[in-house]
Amino acid sequence: MTTNQLISEIRKKNSFLCVGLDVDLEKIPAFFLKEEDPIFSFNKAIIDATHQFAVAYKPNTAFYEAYGIKGWKSLEKTINYLNENYPEIFTIADAKRGDIGNTSSRYAKAFFEDLGFDSITVAPYMGKDSIEPFLAFENKHTILLALTSNEGAYDFQTKKVGEQELYKQVLETSKQWKNSENLMYVVGATKAEYFTDIRKIIPDSFLLVPGIGAQGGNLRDVCKYGLNSNIGLLVNSSRGIIYASKNDDFAEAAAGEAKKIQFEMKAILDGVH
Amino acid sequence: MTTNQLISEIRKKNSFLCVGLDVDLEKIPAFFLKEEDPIFSFNKAIIDATHQFAVAYKPNTAFYEAYGIKGWKSLEKTINYLNENYPEIFTIADAKRGDIGNTSSRYAKAFFEDLGFDSITVAPYMGKDSIEPFLAFENKHTILLALTSNEGAYDFQTKKVGEQELYKQVLETSKQWKNSENLMYVVGATKAEYFTDIRKIIPDSFLLVPGIGAQGGNLRDVCKYGLNSNIGLLVNSSRGIIYASKNDDFAEAAAGEAKKIQFEMKAILDGVH
Repeated sequence: MTTNQLISEIRKKNSFLCVGLDVDLEKIPAFFLKEEDPIFSFNKAIIDATHQFAVAYKPNTAFYEAYGIKGWKSLEKTINYLNENYPEIFTIADAKRGDIGNTSSRYAKAFFEDLGFDSITVAPYMGKDSIEPFLAFENKHTILLALTSNEGAYDFQTKKVGEQELYKQVLETSKQWKNSENLMYVVGATKAEYFTDIRKIIPDSFLLVPGIGAQGGNLRDVCKYGLNSNIGLLVNSSRGIIYASKNDDFAEAAAGEAKKIQFEMKAILDGVH
Repeated sequence: MTTNQLISEIRKKNSFLCVGLDVDLEKIPAFFLKEEDPIFSFNKAIIDATHQFAVAYKPNTAFYEAYGIKGWKSLEKTINYLNENYPEIFTIADAKRGDIGNTSSRYAKAFFEDLGFDSITVAPYMGKDSIEPFLAFENKHTILLALTSNEGAYDFQTKKVGEQELYKQVLETSKQWKNSENLMYVVGATKAEYFTDIRKIIPDSFLLVPGIGAQGGNLRDVCKYGLNSNIGLLVNSSRGIIYASKNDDFAEAAAGEAKKIQFEMKAILDGVH
């Protein structure tokens, strides 16, 4: 998917919501456990119920790997279901990969070509040659961890490297990489005040923002400092939507939560333009 | 496996060689392609031929993920084969994972409990709460990326954070994490002169050293600066061993290469003690 297609979808739906598919068998309605593939069945129901309010879905691969080969099958079925039924949806493999060049090429092929994801999250620690193999794929997007929403973000990311914090150094440096126009960035919502500085460095890039809801971020603050003329934000919510109810009404409850966020997003977008 | 068991195995075999199982279908002897599971069959042959010269095996998970569910089956069979036939061997899932706490717990469970690896490589960028879930597993080892062997290591890892380079900051900070005795570190062999400083910070920890051979590191230099009283090194070679020949003699050729390195290691250990 091209960035322009994503932007046009956002404008059409008045939504920049990403739904995180972090599925835990202990948290989904119990009746799914009787199904052949509980995770996929649950995802399918959630996607069908929420897709009109969302522009992106983000399975975190750890939740699938935790169930071994079965889990990988569920992931494969989920991405296939999305691509077949909702090709207008932007898909994110939240995998946080990154390795030396020939290995990163393998990951890129696996997630972009074989599984057919539009994008993947990657970690910056190993630098340029660990990321460029991902950037080489046309109309695929590489979402680099910059400032994450967890407490450990303060261990290294916000430490000063010379004049500026490490995460800013990551932003600056990555702009110089080949095909850097295919980069997006993870910026946690728990630190809305940081968005002003971030937008000075990467005014045009899309930011994937986790941490709304369960992790404590505030949507209005994030938008105030993070929106750009092309929206430039994908705001993720996982548990708040997919676990809105553990009962028979789980799908309607998920749709209700997604709609609530989309409604807020529309109000914000209406206020801006 | 406990660290003491690993040390005793190293002393018994006079080897601290780790064999990297980075299997590429295009590089293994063509006759394997007729088999039901070419990757596992190849790994099995390599392991059987080289196990007496090596103390550890390290499949890089990217190479398996690249083949989708089939690849995961090959990985599962490989680790099961190692655990069943060579329980004295230290196993490393080279996965370079790292995510927020509840997600890292998933990865830890998947690799330590379900797959049964002794250790996993992880990336430090997300800090303490992304790593501690791994450290919580008893007699399992978490191998933190410190200084990698690729060119991109100079992008961030060697940048000064305050008084010292980022990778040193990673070493210092990680020592304070809970159960830090379960930490080992990745330190690339292409930078042997760095080992002196590294040993000042973590004198007792095991270091996993990639980059001997294909990536240009030198075994004697690494040992000169990196060995400690408990050896404290696992030196990895992947392509140099597993692709020593593409013909019928691939297993003997792999054994020959492994033996050559083990012979050098023995000479170094004999010189030290």
